[in-house]
Amino acid sequence: MGDTAARAWMRRALQLAAAGPWPDPNPRVGCVIVAPDGAVVGEGFHHGAGTPHAEIEALREAADAARGATAYVTLEPCSHTGRTGPCSDALADAGVSRVVFAQSDPNPDAAGGAERLHAAGVHVTGGVLADEAAGINERWARTVDLGRPLVTWKLATTLDGRSAAADGSSQWITGEAARADVHLLRATRDAVLVGTGTLLADDPRLTVRMPGGAPALQQPLRAVMGLREVPSRARVHDAPGAVMHLETRDPREALDLLWCRGVRDVWLEGGPTLAAAFLGAGLVDDVYAYVAPALLGSGAAAVDDLGIRSISEVRRLDLVDVVVIGGDVRIHAVPAGTVPAAPLTAPLRAHAEP
Amino acid sequence: MGDTAARAWMRRALQLAAAGPWPDPNPRVGCVIVAPDGAVVGEGFHHGAGTPHAEIEALREAADAARGATAYVTLEPCSHTGRTGPCSDALADAGVSRVVFAQSDPNPDAAGGAERLHAAGVHVTGGVLADEAAGINERWARTVDLGRPLVTWKLATTLDGRSAAADGSSQWITGEAARADVHLLRATRDAVLVGTGTLLADDPRLTVRMPGGAPALQQPLRAVMGLREVPSRARVHDAPGAVMHLETRDPREALDLLWCRGVRDVWLEGGPTLAAAFLGAGLVDDVYAYVAPALLGSGAAAVDDLGIRSISEVRRLDLVDVVVIGGDVRIHAVPAGTVPAAPLTAPLRAHAEP
Repeated sequence: MGDTAARAWMRRALQLAAAGPWPDPNPRVGCVIVAPDGAVVGEGFHHGAGTPHAEIEALREAADAARGATAYVTLEPCSHTGRTGPCSDALADAGVSRVVFAQSDPNPDAAGGAERLHAAGVHVTGGVLADEAAGINERWARTVDLGRPLVTWKLATTLDGRSAAADGSSQWITGEAARADVHLLRATRDAVLVGTGTLLADDPRLTVRMPGGAPALQQPLRAVMGLREVPSRARVHDAPGAVMHLETRDPREALDLLWCRGVRDVWLEGGPTLAAAFLGAGLVDDVYAYVAPALLGSGAAAVDDLGIRSISEVRRLDLVDVVVIGGDVRIHAVPAGTVPAAPLTAPLRAHAEP
Repeated sequence: MGDTAARAWMRRALQLAAAGPWPDPNPRVGCVIVAPDGAVVGEGFHHGAGTPHAEIEALREAADAARGATAYVTLEPCSHTGRTGPCSDALADAGVSRVVFAQSDPNPDAAGGAERLHAAGVHVTGGVLADEAAGINERWARTVDLGRPLVTWKLATTLDGRSAAADGSSQWITGEAARADVHLLRATRDAVLVGTGTLLADDPRLTVRMPGGAPALQQPLRAVMGLREVPSRARVHDAPGAVMHLETRDPREALDLLWCRGVRDVWLEGGPTLAAAFLGAGLVDDVYAYVAPALLGSGAAAVDDLGIRSISEVRRLDLVDVVVIGGDVRIHAVPAGTVPAAPLTAPLRAHAEP
């Protein structure tokens, strides 16, 4: 088997992997099982937490044809028993004679599959197109490293830094196109988070809406954090999808609660208090600032006191990109010195149903 | 004489005109005098207030050869006696038989030259490449219409709209490249204006400095407005070039004083009080906001109270362009509904000496 053929099959496996969902507690994985005569006998990809791993799906399709075949998998087959048994065992049991994988499993709980396969007498080759495979799961790997969801803070301000007028009104600072862009980006996250203060002041719906105003089919979790009660008649309850009240003021605790719920990519829209709490705790990974070419001269800023007294303590960010959207400017930045995570470009997340 | 030839000579006159200075109380004008045999016998352009008009310069070069020749002038020759006599008389007196001009004079004090020439028996054709000629003097024409200098407000803020930290320190919010860009734009104006508050707080030099820090040869007027005294030891006095103290708090009065001094394009850098005064009086024509991807969480905004209470009263601007400069973002905007004046792109103003 030449390298070229292995890479070609791995490309197919990567295509399958990319069809999987993000955000998700699990990485996106694809698998192709190829018989010795070069016939594809099984394909699979991981459709998200609670569904079979890619290898299991491919093995089911291959059935007896897996015997003597080669499995190409974008991630080292797991060695742990979660909702499914270890994939490495399943591949060995099915009589697969060779496993070629791309990325080694960075999750310590799941790693060790290559050794397990080897011990079962299966030929194992790792590292084929490993970088491409890692790229597909870059945000997932970050959440594993951090042990918390990624947090994207969104703010909308005038040119003079006001996020609301003197009377508290803020609808709307930016134009329709910028607001539509917010909905597209919200749709790529699995939770939208605000504080009870914003909830009580603005009564936001926090839903992803399509151009025209209809709610999208898939809705991120709508999370409200803080100790005040969420009124039962709040508009946040009006749309399909789940609402979660995180009864804490501690950003880290809120993220832990969301993590346990399976949330991996949070869109933070809460007011200046919440923004300051997350920024102060170093828990913001991405900043999207929508700057309207407009002036208010008074009104609240987007973020409360960060304890900074002098310009020497200014919190620097690095630009990722700057885009004009309608008549407004979107500035995407990350904390200085951090490498921006792979962008989420899917306009609306298309969950492939299992 | 075909139209094509007239346009070709007018193009040459426009090239000459563009060599003139802006800002200046006078428009930029070029003139070419062509003998009946097609030989260029004189060329001239206006080098700025206090120097001869383009026609006079060209006539001096042509001397006797002007007799029977055609003069191509980018602006209708003037009919008024200022520092120089009327150019229309000079052209007629020199025996020029035909005058072709581009733009009619929009200045009512100077207009009427075409009629005066016609009355003196000179053939007159107007409107040749009139749009191109108007384009060269677009900012000048605006100042004539407005009866005041154009005002460009420059602000520098963090992403959360702070122009200084809590302790008042503001050096530096933006990076070196953005600050160098400010110097290039300052250099295209004929006055830099701050309030006494900014002068006393920051002790700015207000000079145009070259990359490296040395002051540029040509310096805009350094104007300080307000009722407080300008200390004799302030750094504003340190560089070559003039300093002017405008003892008023009224923006309109300050602009009148600058206008009488010959100033036509003001770069406004003063703090939030001054910015609010100019914005409140509708006396800002261009806004350059340098936005640093940084957060402060506290500190003064770029503009004080504008009397706006609710978001419905927000002062909208229209984007002209958005540029990333170094690690910062420069947003150029104009009051909503206004057409942006022609940009000043010359990196450093090159005054052609008379």
